[in-house]
Amino acid sequence: MRIALLNPNTTEVFTVRLGEACRAIAAPGTVVIARAPAVGTPSVECHTDEAIATIGLMQLAREEEALGTDAYVIACFGDTGIDAVREIAGGPVVGMTEAALQAASTVAAFFSVVTLPPRTIVQAERVVRHLGLSHRCRKVRAIDVLVDDCVDLDETLLAAMIAESRAALAQDGAEAIVLGCAGLSALVGPMTQALGVPVIDGVGVAMKIAEGLVANGLRTSKHCSWATPPRHPAA
Amino acid sequence: MRIALLNPNTTEVFTVRLGEACRAIAAPGTVVIARAPAVGTPSVECHTDEAIATIGLMQLAREEEALGTDAYVIACFGDTGIDAVREIAGGPVVGMTEAALQAASTVAAFFSVVTLPPRTIVQAERVVRHLGLSHRCRKVRAIDVLVDDCVDLDETLLAAMIAESRAALAQDGAEAIVLGCAGLSALVGPMTQALGVPVIDGVGVAMKIAEGLVANGLRTSKHCSWATPPRHPAA
Amino acid sequence: MRIALLNPNTTEVFTVRLGEACRAIAAPGTVVIARAPAVGTPSVECHTDEAIATIGLMQLAREEEALGTDAYVIACFGDTGIDAVREIAGGPVVGMTEAALQAASTVAAFFSVVTLPPRTIVQAERVVRHLGLSHRCRKVRAIDVLVDDCVDLDETLLAAMIAESRAALAQDGAEAIVLGCAGLSALVGPMTQALGVPVIDGVGVAMKIAEGLVANGLRTSKHCSWATPPRHPAA
Amino acid sequence: MRIALLNPNTTEVFTVRLGEACRAIAAPGTVVIARAPAVGTPSVECHTDEAIATIGLMQLAREEEALGTDAYVIACFGDTGIDAVREIAGGPVVGMTEAALQAASTVAAFFSVVTLPPRTIVQAERVVRHLGLSHRCRKVRAIDVLVDDCVDLDETLLAAMIAESRAALAQDGAEAIVLGCAGLSALVGPMTQALGVPVIDGVGVAMKIAEGLVANGLRTSKHCSWATPPRHPAA
Amino acid sequence: MRIALLNPNTTEVFTVRLGEACRAIAAPGTVVIARAPAVGTPSVECHTDEAIATIGLMQLAREEEALGTDAYVIACFGDTGIDAVREIAGGPVVGMTEAALQAASTVAAFFSVVTLPPRTIVQAERVVRHLGLSHRCRKVRAIDVLVDDCVDLDETLLAAMIAESRAALAQDGAEAIVLGCAGLSALVGPMTQALGVPVIDGVGVAMKIAEGLVANGLRTSKHCSWATPPRHPAA
Amino acid sequence: MRIALLNPNTTEVFTVRLGEACRAIAAPGTVVIARAPAVGTPSVECHTDEAIATIGLMQLAREEEALGTDAYVIACFGDTGIDAVREIAGGPVVGMTEAALQAASTVAAFFSVVTLPPRTIVQAERVVRHLGLSHRCRKVRAIDVLVDDCVDLDETLLAAMIAESRAALAQDGAEAIVLGCAGLSALVGPMTQALGVPVIDGVGVAMKIAEGLVANGLRTSKHCSWATPPRHPAA
Repeated sequence: MRIALLNPNTTEVFTVRLGEACRAIAAPGTVVIARAPAVGTPSVECHTDEAIATIGLMQLAREEEALGTDAYVIACFGDTGIDAVREIAGGPVVGMTEAALQAASTVAAFFSVVTLPPRTIVQAERVVRHLGLSHRCRKVRAIDVLVDDCVDLDETLLAAMIAESRAALAQDGAEAIVLGCAGLSALVGPMTQALGVPVIDGVGVAMKIAEGLVANGLRTSKHCSWATPPRHPAA
Repeated sequence: MRIALLNPNTTEVFTVRLGEACRAIAAPGTVVIARAPAVGTPSVECHTDEAIATIGLMQLAREEEALGTDAYVIACFGDTGIDAVREIAGGPVVGMTEAALQAASTVAAFFSVVTLPPRTIVQAERVVRHLGLSHRCRKVRAIDVLVDDCVDLDETLLAAMIAESRAALAQDGAEAIVLGCAGLSALVGPMTQALGVPVIDGVGVAMKIAEGLVANGLRTSKHCSWATPPRHPAA
Repeated sequence: MRIALLNPNTTEVFTVRLGEACRAIAAPGTVVIARAPAVGTPSVECHTDEAIATIGLMQLAREEEALGTDAYVIACFGDTGIDAVREIAGGPVVGMTEAALQAASTVAAFFSVVTLPPRTIVQAERVVRHLGLSHRCRKVRAIDVLVDDCVDLDETLLAAMIAESRAALAQDGAEAIVLGCAGLSALVGPMTQALGVPVIDGVGVAMKIAEGLVANGLRTSKHCSWATPPRHPAA
Repeated sequence: MRIALLNPNTTEVFTVRLGEACRAIAAPGTVVIARAPAVGTPSVECHTDEAIATIGLMQLAREEEALGTDAYVIACFGDTGIDAVREIAGGPVVGMTEAALQAASTVAAFFSVVTLPPRTIVQAERVVRHLGLSHRCRKVRAIDVLVDDCVDLDETLLAAMIAESRAALAQDGAEAIVLGCAGLSALVGPMTQALGVPVIDGVGVAMKIAEGLVANGLRTSKHCSWATPPRHPAA
Repeated sequence: MRIALLNPNTTEVFTVRLGEACRAIAAPGTVVIARAPAVGTPSVECHTDEAIATIGLMQLAREEEALGTDAYVIACFGDTGIDAVREIAGGPVVGMTEAALQAASTVAAFFSVVTLPPRTIVQAERVVRHLGLSHRCRKVRAIDVLVDDCVDLDETLLAAMIAESRAALAQDGAEAIVLGCAGLSALVGPMTQALGVPVIDGVGVAMKIAEGLVANGLRTSKHCSWATPPRHPAA
Repeated sequence: MRIALLNPNTTEVFTVRLGEACRAIAAPGTVVIARAPAVGTPSVECHTDEAIATIGLMQLAREEEALGTDAYVIACFGDTGIDAVREIAGGPVVGMTEAALQAASTVAAFFSVVTLPPRTIVQAERVVRHLGLSHRCRKVRAIDVLVDDCVDLDETLLAAMIAESRAALAQDGAEAIVLGCAGLSALVGPMTQALGVPVIDGVGVAMKIAEGLVANGLRTSKHCSWATPPRHPAA
């Protein structure tokens, strides 16, 4: 089984990290390919970035379709471009945000999201609402750091994430924390240690869901909404 | 006051029609410019088309900002790329779908949307839900015609729209009809005549709302969600 | 085009202010008439006041219909009596609360309302919920001042409004502020200056929406819910 | 204990019927007074009627307060003027629509409303939504009869109500029927017989809820929203 | 009329208290029986307790059916096992939580719940959401006390309840308080005295609603969802 | 990794089928154990059955905890007893209904459920609403067959399921079908063949999600709602 992790940004260190984190938990026989667009935006921090990144994701999906890829993971909080990729893909397409929120609602009655930077709260809330989990997600919180600043996962970032998560547990009634950014999987261990509740990185969860959908023989419905687009314009 | 009507597709006849329809109702002193991307997709019929069209809309918005445009209308049902344009724009940005639904909820207690083709029902429902009007919008209906086929507003199209609208009045409890596609303003007259209820073309309504927001001195909030993007990558 | 601003209360200074504010932004050719009931309540601060004011509004609407008025604005936060006026009116009827909330959702991803006095929070939330904007409106806040006390728009009132609005930006995640009372349009300038985000007075926005609906040929649907009442009892 | 049934319309036969139906099931010691406004509207079939009726209800409530009434029932589908009466009343105020819907959700997992005439569907849906029961109420249906035509509870009316209710059971998945009009309590027996599911007349249920709230020592909260109005203008 | 109060836990003092409180307000002719399972759990503080208690409630309901009981009250916050009892019962079954929330929404525009212990917030929110009252219930609060600790209604418990309720009034905008535990009816008096707003104990309200439903001739719908179970396995 | 499939009913053929279906898709190294309660109910067709089955599930979970089981699947449509099992379990607990609905929303924009018998529609809607997917799930449909009758997966059952599913595609706008009963996995193949859209059996999907949560190191949050119960009464 071949699963393509699509990193919407062009920062190579994120792409490498995603692949490593997922390969560590993939089932034997699952080939995990992590890819990023050749040109695009170094991180996805706003709607403009999302638009640019979507073009790159569509190109990656077309290439992967030609290679017979079985499933896709959109490895960006906000699930950038997921509907467009679903039109192109034959196999299932799993967004890391969807996956993280579904996992959170499975292991905790209530949870909060800690994302970054504050201007992306609107994207996180969009996915929460689209999934219908507004009554389970206590709050979307953000720390004031750019995605670009997550290249180095230093102590300052970790401390800020832990502090905001503690506020979520104490003030929101959260019982688990969703990490609102891809590429932070190295924080899961120390944060879980510090907080004592589940800390959820959506990328790994999404990859395993994708694996499971393929194992169950499920593919994207081509009936109506996500049918193959009527024409294939050059991106 | 300069208002830019942004047609997300490249079909010139739609761009021309939009401009004419809006200029006919603009206030004295309002300059209405209808523009389309130089390259892109001839119509917006799926999420893939939306992604491609958004890149073109962003480029148009950047050019219009340089020209001092006061407000924007996104002239496509589904409000393609509206969040990205809002990040770029200083003035208000009004989507024709938002505008049509708001107008419908002002002139009727309940309404239905008649859109095309069926695969875009999901986009129409996305806007209805984002606006929070699910309890006012009785149903999103579709006729099985491509947007491309609306270049000629012939009798067959009109008959199909009227038949579907009659079903909405009789079966859904609708009290007004929202046209789910730009470039159909020529149908408003004959449909209103045939149905006896308000028939709403969002483009004209959106242009007047944009005019009104500018008259009230309102501009897009640059606090957080729709702030100017942190960098300006080449589209 | 004749637009009637219906002030539900009998305090003349509010009626005068509404007219002046709207005439300043009306399109050439739009005649703005601001009217108040001959007898009624000096301000609308509770449901009892709303009931009394509605009778006056219905009388005004009947008189305006006889005069051929093209559209109406209900110039009171809470949109007092709007459904009854819609039954009587042929043209569109726009509530200032509806208009303010729609405008806010166009220029900001999230907003808060600052109204007065606290007992009217319930009316403001009623409109927010009726419009379906609970997920966009972060909070309805109130300052502890009577509507009667807004006759003089003094420094104390301005300071209280700015303080509450700052709390909305800092604590609620609001990105724009909706003024929850008619007759405060003189505060828009200084508040915008102080806060740096859009500050929305619904009356002016409502008047321009009404103008736009008329320009688009839209009238109130007489199919079912808002049809002309079956009899005309003496009010 | 004195409970005032407030009939918002001036048709005496309805007032008499309400009183008789409720006295038949009142607890010993409960005095049931059925009253209607001296002037007003012969039935409540639209928002205009609601506005006129509310003034009469407020006057009745003021008179009853002077008489020491313990609780009120608003005996009209749509719960006309209930918020205004709550401001005036010291004791609890129960709407027949609220009561009917709450009772329906207690005795059935899902239910439908059968109201009349069709133009009042909007009022019934308003109460359903205000109570938050949209997921329990399968549909609001209407038969095409005026309230005025219910003075005589003839075979035609009964047959129409049964036919519409059968459609609700077969097509909506309803498991109980709510009668959407006051003064139909005589239909409860034959309809229950014909349908084999609970048929709910809100007036009787509301009266018993009012009795129960008084027995529990509960009165209307005067903290904020429904506090006594700041002034008492002549109605 | 015979009404069975079903206490899901085995702590006799609670059963005794429930019966006394309800008999004090029952109508002449109403026989109130308070019963608890012979074996089960001493209090209901978690989902595991709910499961155990439900078996006991089903057994009680079967016995009461044989005795011709007219109606039931589930006397536990969270309305433990109510759907199962509704399948067994012929008469209406009223949950104390449902009843409390409905009463609260009748006497106050907004309310908060004060429950215990914190881990049961999820059950309280489940009922709020099932009833559709999320927009009326400002917040579910909890004090950190076990149900077991409510056997003695001492000053410490009262002080904690009052303190949390004051926070609800000041911070949540609540206008009434719902007691989130059965067996606290003795607190209603002192809390009402201290707070000046309605304080609602669901058991008494539920008993009177049950009485009212029976008086109106209403029984549980046996059409579909709550029909008699197809077999009667040994519990 | 050991995953326990908990079949809430005592019908051995279902238990055997569940185990076989899941073992066929489990990753190497995953041990799948399918278990059923020793005593209980032969199928779960109502709330009473759910209550009985939950006691059995709790007992199974306690035994599995002692054996060091890593994760659980509740193999019954309606996710019987899932909250109680989550309190007992250390590892994640995945309901087949939750899993099916999440998978459906991943591979299709809209879907319908086809369950049996009709009286369990209420349970299916409960899970849909709890997950917040009411806007994605077009309809819960049912065929009039008992769960007991699914022991033999004969042609009649298959034909009925296909006919109801075709209605869902044609009338509801569904783009995928969720099977509303465990033990029907043998129908997935022929139904997919006949319908041409994804047909989802929740058990297999749930098992793979459970596998994925364990691989990601996630366990049930013991903070608050699903903490270990304070006492362990004999079931």
